[in-house]
Amino acid sequence: MNETHDPNRRSWVSSANTAETDFTIQNLPFAVFRRKNTSEIFRGGVAIGDQIVDLLQLDSKGILGGDAAQAAAEACKPQLNDFMNLGPRYWSALRLALSNLLKQGADSTGPFADCLQPQTEAEYHLPCQIGDFTDFYTSIYHATKVGKLFRPENPLLPNYKWVPIGYHGRASSFGVSGQDIHRPWGQTRAPDVTDPVFSPCKRVDFELELGAFIGSGNALGQPIAMGEAENHIFGLSLLNDWSARDIQAWEYQPLGPFLAKSFASTISPWIVTLEALAPYRAPFARDPQDPQPLPYLDSNQNSESGHIDINLQVYIQSEHMRQQQITPHKLSIAQFANSYWTLAQLVAHHTSNGCNLNTGDILGTGTQSGPSEEESGAMIEITKGKIPISLPSGEERVFLEDGDTIIFKGFCEKAGFSRIGFGECSGTILPAISPDH
Amino acid sequence: MNETHDPNRRSWVSSANTAETDFTIQNLPFAVFRRKNTSEIFRGGVAIGDQIVDLLQLDSKGILGGDAAQAAAEACKPQLNDFMNLGPRYWSALRLALSNLLKQGADSTGPFADCLQPQTEAEYHLPCQIGDFTDFYTSIYHATKVGKLFRPENPLLPNYKWVPIGYHGRASSFGVSGQDIHRPWGQTRAPDVTDPVFSPCKRVDFELELGAFIGSGNALGQPIAMGEAENHIFGLSLLNDWSARDIQAWEYQPLGPFLAKSFASTISPWIVTLEALAPYRAPFARDPQDPQPLPYLDSNQNSESGHIDINLQVYIQSEHMRQQQITPHKLSIAQFANSYWTLAQLVAHHTSNGCNLNTGDILGTGTQSGPSEEESGAMIEITKGKIPISLPSGEERVFLEDGDTIIFKGFCEKAGFSRIGFGECSGTILPAISPDH
Repeated sequence: MNETHDPNRRSWVSSANTAETDFTIQNLPFAVFRRKNTSEIFRGGVAIGDQIVDLLQLDSKGILGGDAAQAAAEACKPQLNDFMNLGPRYWSALRLALSNLLKQGADSTGPFADCLQPQTEAEYHLPCQIGDFTDFYTSIYHATKVGKLFRPENPLLPNYKWVPIGYHGRASSFGVSGQDIHRPWGQTRAPDVTDPVFSPCKRVDFELELGAFIGSGNALGQPIAMGEAENHIFGLSLLNDWSARDIQAWEYQPLGPFLAKSFASTISPWIVTLEALAPYRAPFARDPQDPQPLPYLDSNQNSESGHIDINLQVYIQSEHMRQQQITPHKLSIAQFANSYWTLAQLVAHHTSNGCNLNTGDILGTGTQSGPSEEESGAMIEITKGKIPISLPSGEERVFLEDGDTIIFKGFCEKAGFSRIGFGECSGTILPAISPDH
Repeated sequence: MNETHDPNRRSWVSSANTAETDFTIQNLPFAVFRRKNTSEIFRGGVAIGDQIVDLLQLDSKGILGGDAAQAAAEACKPQLNDFMNLGPRYWSALRLALSNLLKQGADSTGPFADCLQPQTEAEYHLPCQIGDFTDFYTSIYHATKVGKLFRPENPLLPNYKWVPIGYHGRASSFGVSGQDIHRPWGQTRAPDVTDPVFSPCKRVDFELELGAFIGSGNALGQPIAMGEAENHIFGLSLLNDWSARDIQAWEYQPLGPFLAKSFASTISPWIVTLEALAPYRAPFARDPQDPQPLPYLDSNQNSESGHIDINLQVYIQSEHMRQQQITPHKLSIAQFANSYWTLAQLVAHHTSNGCNLNTGDILGTGTQSGPSEEESGAMIEITKGKIPISLPSGEERVFLEDGDTIIFKGFCEKAGFSRIGFGECSGTILPAISPDH
């Protein structure tokens, strides 16, 4: 940790000093934005309180020098890939420079002050070009709870505690928070009939995840070792890997989920850097009965501070609730520190066969759940696919209905440290479109 | 069909008129190339006999007009994506213009003649930026033969004849023919022990496939109907989806193959356009006992000419054979006309949930096998994973060994029509690299 993590540091942007803000001066996450209802080009920005540091403006002022200037020249582009590819030295230099420009006591009336834009006037774009998307399955609680629905006698498969299970996902259908998602059509087969039908999905679900963005990648054939793995991770955002459970059940044997997942994935606009999360590193106490990780997935760092203690929350607001001005209802919570595998293990495992990761690739953590009932990162866990829950509007839900908005929030908090928040990841289910056939 | 398919058309490039050439004037496939051992920029090219039409040269000559000129201006770039995104009208215009420039009787001494480069002096690059890679499972013979190894009593799963089964693959690790592939490391577990080990893969395999390149894509949420599907396919190349069978067996439950596939996929440099393949369209006689495709996967075109009759061949040359100057040995054959699903069905199914395809995406056909023993598109089918085959050098193989080169060939031939060939897709297995741990 360094001076950018100092909990006593405050900003002259007063909204960054409140107890509830996600965007303290210790956070400084990156996004790509422009002013709403304009045809301005999208460019990189950094959140501070309720404002955004416009990096294109900043770059043009010539205020920065050295590595920070070089970093800003890349981070002000319409996609963050070139900046993310620079590596930790440059990410840190820009973070430190911004922290010093924004801290209380720094000049709040000079040219840098012109670089601030209010978040209320901004719209966001995907932060980078996403090459490949890999989705893991890191929550042993999720794997066990979902496994029980399909295999009550044998919920957890024998490979789970050895292999960070993952699969290739669809990169093209990512959208940024605020995405509208049409209910997908698909093939499904009811349990009591022989022939499937093609119809709108009846079991649309969310999946509460984090997405880790790859900063600099590796060459094909050159694995990344555990000790180097975190240097390749730029940061994290919230990720909703929307799922169609009825399509999934019919299609997934033997090659895994396909159209049940590829209709949409939504991420929050802000990428919180791994450096910002340093105060919230956490150990994981693997059950002593469990096998130790194989050497290529092991390191001291893994057990001592391999995890990150991030609180995750899911809210729902139905169309009816919106009309009645009923605020979003908390559906579920989870803690990323409960993940069975660390981000470093995901990178080391993914590249262990020589597979190359590229800048902008996303590694999803998979649905995050916990040991208790309320820690359930998907409707299929909350309702078991059949037991309805009640909303404050009096409506009931087993899966998502048209007009439902799902909102994820994420934040780190502990005594003596500043809050680090992720902002929101929201998306709304719209009615199915009738295909042209 | 049009004048470019006329079997009587010959070229003034005499090597294009031989019986054995893959690159007749009726073919005209696209690649990205430069002269070997130079730092020239890569650019688009079209094969004719043993020559390449250098599209960058052609574009600079100002010979073409109209749609063909516009197409060539995009096709001469270092990646073909912008050309592929133009759609069938422009692809056809450039094909027709090239056919007319290359036909017997056209001017073989003017400025166009300067645009030819010998293939022997060329090196190739991936033809386009590949966004997402989806691999299907279209051979019912492959699905049945492999299914028998795992589930002798129930080889074909109930969804197979309804759903064009597919899964998301890894796009980053594609390489072009001539690729060297280090044997991957990975977790495997022997049948008779509890704990897995991390070691070099013992069961490296090839998979004989074709890859279909998406030309213009679709917007998220907007499915492509069967009748429109082929307008979105630019063309086909040979595809080897290298596989690590022992890694696959341990990792693939419940989310499908992951590291068993992501270490490398190899394609042939030339993309043969769908238009060139028009004379080789074929019907598919679905077993009358089988269910008819659901309406979103059905069309008259599907049954009458939905398939393409492409002959596929696999050759192996071991290190020892190379040293002894023993030519590559034919391992296997297959016919793409035996595929259970058509390319149009793959596109319609993939987008039926609203998933967006992008220019440069690859849809793999999955391993192509046939009803007979010799039509087996992977070592695991040929040897059942245990019965060795003999090579002409006296060596035996169950799976691939270090130094083995696998070569795919593909071609269309029938009486009264010109041969359309795919060139070669080759790759060599190198020893495993020891990772830094």
